Amino acid sequence: MSNTLGDKYRVQVFGQSHSPMIGAVIEGIPAGVLPDMDFINAFMARRAPGGALSTARREADAPRIVSGLNEKGATCGAPLCVLIQNTDARSRDYDNLRDVPRPGHADYTAAVKFSGHNDIRGGGQFSGRLTAPLCFAGALAMQLLREKGVQVRARVHSVAGIGDASVDLARPPMDGLCEGPLPCVDAGAARRMAEAIEAARADGDSVGGVVECWATGLPAGLGDPMFDGVENRVARALFGIPAVRGVEFGLGFAAAGMRGSEHNDPFRAVDGRIVTDGNNHGGALGGITSGMPLVVRAAFKPTPSIARQQPSVSLRRGENAPLVIQGRHDPCIVPRAVPVVEAAVACVVWDMILGDQF
Amino acid sequence: MSNTLGDKYRVQVFGQSHSPMIGAVIEGIPAGVLPDMDFINAFMARRAPGGALSTARREADAPRIVSGLNEKGATCGAPLCVLIQNTDARSRDYDNLRDVPRPGHADYTAAVKFSGHNDIRGGGQFSGRLTAPLCFAGALAMQLLREKGVQVRARVHSVAGIGDASVDLARPPMDGLCEGPLPCVDAGAARRMAEAIEAARADGDSVGGVVECWATGLPAGLGDPMFDGVENRVARALFGIPAVRGVEFGLGFAAAGMRGSEHNDPFRAVDGRIVTDGNNHGGALGGITSGMPLVVRAAFKPTPSIARQQPSVSLRRGENAPLVIQGRHDPCIVPRAVPVVEAAVACVVWDMILGDQF
Amino acid sequence: MSNTLGDKYRVQVFGQSHSPMIGAVIEGIPAGVLPDMDFINAFMARRAPGGALSTARREADAPRIVSGLNEKGATCGAPLCVLIQNTDARSRDYDNLRDVPRPGHADYTAAVKFSGHNDIRGGGQFSGRLTAPLCFAGALAMQLLREKGVQVRARVHSVAGIGDASVDLARPPMDGLCEGPLPCVDAGAARRMAEAIEAARADGDSVGGVVECWATGLPAGLGDPMFDGVENRVARALFGIPAVRGVEFGLGFAAAGMRGSEHNDPFRAVDGRIVTDGNNHGGALGGITSGMPLVVRAAFKPTPSIARQQPSVSLRRGENAPLVIQGRHDPCIVPRAVPVVEAAVACVVWDMILGDQF
Amino acid sequence: MSNTLGDKYRVQVFGQSHSPMIGAVIEGIPAGVLPDMDFINAFMARRAPGGALSTARREADAPRIVSGLNEKGATCGAPLCVLIQNTDARSRDYDNLRDVPRPGHADYTAAVKFSGHNDIRGGGQFSGRLTAPLCFAGALAMQLLREKGVQVRARVHSVAGIGDASVDLARPPMDGLCEGPLPCVDAGAARRMAEAIEAARADGDSVGGVVECWATGLPAGLGDPMFDGVENRVARALFGIPAVRGVEFGLGFAAAGMRGSEHNDPFRAVDGRIVTDGNNHGGALGGITSGMPLVVRAAFKPTPSIARQQPSVSLRRGENAPLVIQGRHDPCIVPRAVPVVEAAVACVVWDMILGDQF
Repeated sequence: MSNTLGDKYRVQVFGQSHSPMIGAVIEGIPAGVLPDMDFINAFMARRAPGGALSTARREADAPRIVSGLNEKGATCGAPLCVLIQNTDARSRDYDNLRDVPRPGHADYTAAVKFSGHNDIRGGGQFSGRLTAPLCFAGALAMQLLREKGVQVRARVHSVAGIGDASVDLARPPMDGLCEGPLPCVDAGAARRMAEAIEAARADGDSVGGVVECWATGLPAGLGDPMFDGVENRVARALFGIPAVRGVEFGLGFAAAGMRGSEHNDPFRAVDGRIVTDGNNHGGALGGITSGMPLVVRAAFKPTPSIARQQPSVSLRRGENAPLVIQGRHDPCIVPRAVPVVEAAVACVVWDMILGDQF
Repeated sequence: MSNTLGDKYRVQVFGQSHSPMIGAVIEGIPAGVLPDMDFINAFMARRAPGGALSTARREADAPRIVSGLNEKGATCGAPLCVLIQNTDARSRDYDNLRDVPRPGHADYTAAVKFSGHNDIRGGGQFSGRLTAPLCFAGALAMQLLREKGVQVRARVHSVAGIGDASVDLARPPMDGLCEGPLPCVDAGAARRMAEAIEAARADGDSVGGVVECWATGLPAGLGDPMFDGVENRVARALFGIPAVRGVEFGLGFAAAGMRGSEHNDPFRAVDGRIVTDGNNHGGALGGITSGMPLVVRAAFKPTPSIARQQPSVSLRRGENAPLVIQGRHDPCIVPRAVPVVEAAVACVVWDMILGDQF
Repeated sequence: MSNTLGDKYRVQVFGQSHSPMIGAVIEGIPAGVLPDMDFINAFMARRAPGGALSTARREADAPRIVSGLNEKGATCGAPLCVLIQNTDARSRDYDNLRDVPRPGHADYTAAVKFSGHNDIRGGGQFSGRLTAPLCFAGALAMQLLREKGVQVRARVHSVAGIGDASVDLARPPMDGLCEGPLPCVDAGAARRMAEAIEAARADGDSVGGVVECWATGLPAGLGDPMFDGVENRVARALFGIPAVRGVEFGLGFAAAGMRGSEHNDPFRAVDGRIVTDGNNHGGALGGITSGMPLVVRAAFKPTPSIARQQPSVSLRRGENAPLVIQGRHDPCIVPRAVPVVEAAVACVVWDMILGDQF
Repeated sequence: MSNTLGDKYRVQVFGQSHSPMIGAVIEGIPAGVLPDMDFINAFMARRAPGGALSTARREADAPRIVSGLNEKGATCGAPLCVLIQNTDARSRDYDNLRDVPRPGHADYTAAVKFSGHNDIRGGGQFSGRLTAPLCFAGALAMQLLREKGVQVRARVHSVAGIGDASVDLARPPMDGLCEGPLPCVDAGAARRMAEAIEAARADGDSVGGVVECWATGLPAGLGDPMFDGVENRVARALFGIPAVRGVEFGLGFAAAGMRGSEHNDPFRAVDGRIVTDGNNHGGALGGITSGMPLVVRAAFKPTPSIARQQPSVSLRRGENAPLVIQGRHDPCIVPRAVPVVEAAVACVVWDMILGDQF
């Protein structure tokens, strides 16, 4: 089940970076839904390679639905299978990578786990390319969430230590982000981040960053106690995105340095509705949504593939060996991670809504 | 399944703060194991209330195993059920709490989710008391892990912004922590943390902190790609502990501010074994253990129950209402959280070992 | 998960025949339900040992709920744990059974599976005693189903080859069964079955039989395609009852000898409702309920514990060894199996209703 | 999860009769396996339409693996996705079927469940065509089982009331079946069955039958107690095959009419191995394999699609309406069901072997 996300909205992702196809099988879509392909394609384009700050690999990433629709093109209650062709998978010799694992990548751990049979080409099943079908599933979830009045949006919180401006977590600026590959509240910050990314690329190096995601319009009462709370589910989803090293909700790690009197969000009655002053809790108390915006941040490490020579080992010879990584890579994964984080959160939120019935 | 942790080593926790009993049903223990009750009881005592820095509630927390053992007291392959009596559950009127939810607690969200039928007494199923059976399961897992050469240990990384000394994550000081309720590398830091906790208590307030956990002796190759990686599983477990707001691995959020050339841990061959220089990756690459120590940190918010009056609302009357919380509470959850974090990590690690078969 | 039944209404059974306690942890009960203990106790009494045709073992089987209720005794959304004491577990030497496995029992297969650590006392976790907590869960499900207008009832279809009268499967006689341990349409058949059971007992032998269960008032549309259809789920539950060797729906095996024109139940419109003429399909088409009564039969083998000496082997010595089984046993499991079959079906039906949301 | 079979060897089937593709995503294949495509294709050909006794629909059923293989064509630890084109899906007007459901089919129940959005074309997701990917998964499991010395084989036990000769269940004739679409011990019985099928076809009618499956070479100790025993798992799989109405193990329903002294299989020591005299228990005791051949039978109802006019209803108009079914159909599903039963059993057996680790 390691490739499967969700309980009622179940998304099983398959494929490798260079397999003929990648895709997903999705269960839990209500019957009678016409997938909004314009919206889905536009959403997936945000993740697709080829942007200004990303890898040179180009993939159309055109999803093709091959099951789950009836004769009118609406969902029919059967699992929906979506396929994406891997068209630009360059054929070359990967023997070197099989021998000398890339630092910071799964080459070595996968080789141990799968006794050397792992697909080494382009990172195999550990490739960020596998987030394309996740984006399809997330876009479809967003389409379904729209009807419930739920919106999911993410911004770049920081790149290379350059932070975006702070926002009111109780009223996240869903429509107040700048255009471009680095959606920020502060367009100047976005520009400085872009410069830091270009500087790293020029140095044959890479940088990391933090993505912050908001979901608004959630009803109170979603999520389950203990191990299936909002945080548990969202964290499980986000740690499925390559390069994520930390996940936090509300104030997250900053809360650890505060006092209770500061951190507690008082309840307040406003026109018969219960809200909180402030949103330090990030929309979840006891694992259950409070009706305030869900706020989650994911930390992405710097892309491990860098152009510089790095020390590594030859697994075959059991001795140290230097490595120079060939091929295309993003100097910073964060721009393309923004829609992926939105997709993961959307899948989880829709799954919780489906699972909520009392 | 929200109260269930694990796939092969399955721990289902049940109970509420003031129900007659709490406990767990555990599957996945090999047959023929004699539970080391001395070890288990000593471990659970670390979490039990009554310590210097904790609540005044006293519970013997003596676990009783009522199923799963054969006539010799060894595990027999059937699920093990362990029960713990709730002996010191003070009977009093909880009507006020049902009406006026405590800020930072699950009172409100649970009331919405369970239409007002949630058990309000002592926090009900959201109480930290539910971590007692988790500690039983973790101690049992540790007993089983010992035979595999795996050790799990946690320290207090910070409390109220006061940090412990830094350590070499590639060689965590498993036996180098000071005694007492705040295990630290630097006993002076532990003392200052204790003072900060007492100061908060004196102010009718509370503080939070960060717990760091290490697991050593892990084989490379544990964990599964994508959504069942080490990080996904450990995060799901840790977010099941009340008050956790963030989880990070290796350098975590700090990695987001670094360059790839700094963050990547180069591989090195040492006597035929593959290790990394440094352990910025925290023992997991692509969701799979590398054989280096697993390093994870969990951020705990300040205890939401504070002695000061706080603004809240009357759910009944739909208007603002001040709240003064009666009863016993910890001014800082971190001391008692240390063994709970160890327990959660031990359960997950043992589960991964059980699930690993190729 | 082998001791767990259900997806949304999850029943995890634990215990062994001679462990201090047996019980269950149940999830998926709506919050705010007051368990109808009179109904539940009366239902469990039907299964309890001590009836005219059953074993001499006597157990009060008084269920005690130790978690999951709020201060008013209503369900609170937390898992409900129910405990039953094992009071009449006779202490004696089971070494002989550990060496010489009983034919038709799990003694040998459990010894292989659990490397000889299985609980041999009274059949351990393979004992029919484990059906007591299942009956608790089933009775609670029936209480919940009553409000939906769903009724579940079983009869003895045959014992020792003596069949009850045939009934109209489209209108099963829910209230038309005779009193006593062998509920039948034909009280004379029940009498002859009882005589056959007594005759077997007198011969130091045992007999088997078939239980037929009906569920009425089901809405059309429950169950899921392929592997989670009504039949798949009910069969999984029923094969969890010791001694079941076959499960069939509607006409079952008899359908295999018929022609389609005979077997197909034509649809008919009656006052705007769609029904079928006849109920050869047993209430499920394509794994989904049709709105007609669910009809399922389970075949029980003759009790393997018989008073006669039987050939077996000494596992220790690896050679043939005769066996005489001591202790109490039912000459026919069918009378006590009737409520157990009802309980299993009720659990599944309630689980499907919970899981049905589109 | 309704389209997913298995716990460790997980097979998720997708597609509808007339969707562009059908297929499966398979997890739990050890890394490094080269799929034996000759064997798999030959196996799938046994199920494919176009045989002497089957429908006129012709499908190449050529499986294409699009993920899960490394550059050498061996499994790499990633989920394997296999696709099969639906090439001969005749385009026509299905409006009539949407209005007038076919008796004995899922048209009506699916319409209720999916609010009329179900894919009506060719039976949609309820079509027997979905057993093609299951056969792929089963053939792959068989390839893996071969190396463990496990063999799976099925015969036609009866068709239209005509039975094959009886066999010794302790020594099933794995290689003693006649050639052709109706593998039997008694070639004469197979001939009479074929005549009965042809006679039914000539009458515009259909017949049912029973398939018996054997698995030999199983180790003792597979399967888990209670709800995950061999019988529970196999039954869940078999009831996933369209038209199955009953499943029984060993003597099955016949056991219900026997005495314990007859039915019990005595244990016997033979050259240090423990075997049973006879195999009335069908290879499973307490849900756990005994090491004797697994014996299971599945009853198939007569194909509900018959050429004769049948009474039905117009859902639109809510009144009775006669139905004449157009299109291609098998007068008896049993010949093509034989490999499907083998596939389902092979998947379950391999899943149990993977899950067995103590």
